[in-house]
Amino acid sequence: MTVQDIANDLVALCRAGDFDTAGQKYWADDVLSVEAMPGDMAEIRGKDAVKGKGDWWAANHEVHSSEVEGPYVNGDQFVVRFKMDLTQKASGDRIQMDEVGLYTVKDGKIVEERFFYA
Amino acid sequence: MTVQDIANDLVALCRAGDFDTAGQKYWADDVLSVEAMPGDMAEIRGKDAVKGKGDWWAANHEVHSSEVEGPYVNGDQFVVRFKMDLTQKASGDRIQMDEVGLYTVKDGKIVEERFFYA
Repeated sequence: MTVQDIANDLVALCRAGDFDTAGQKYWADDVLSVEAMPGDMAEIRGKDAVKGKGDWWAANHEVHSSEVEGPYVNGDQFVVRFKMDLTQKASGDRIQMDEVGLYTVKDGKIVEERFFYA
Repeated sequence: MTVQDIANDLVALCRAGDFDTAGQKYWADDVLSVEAMPGDMAEIRGKDAVKGKGDWWAANHEVHSSEVEGPYVNGDQFVVRFKMDLTQKASGDRIQMDEVGLYTVKDGKIVEERFFYA
């Protein structure tokens, strides 16, 4: 698969709300996931740990609707934009999230995902 | 200025159509500009050379309207999305361009800009 193929498939899975499958299919075993925020979730390494972050996120947010744009590809990297209308369960706050993910591919797997916030 | 400040100002200048000022103000002398496309414009280094690319682009495209979204910030990097309705003067083709730029900042200047296409 080319980087474009992987990017297209990841976007299709995310559009279907199937973030977990996207990760299981494409994360490298030692994937590094980098958030913009401070704190102990800022940098997480390893497929199991990143899946754990995703599970935590899914359990703590209610997504009312989402929009996925892209992919935007350059060489071994691609960008995806995510817009979500969600409620943070802990606070009850409803938020319009707008972020982009920058993915780096090596040997057909995502070795890094890095998230940027508007 | 923080990376967020630079990102905000660059987006404001681009929204005003003033891409040249944005570059002159923030490009580092040895800035590297990376396009997704093959060819001799793919990687260009140096403020003057990158300005030359911008001048070439401006002379060869007619922009009917544009939309700039962002910035999306993470650490020393930020992402901006550009949508443009433009005509390529050479071919006469009218194109809906959709791309994102990933900018890396060091010591208050942009040391790399990398463009990704949908």
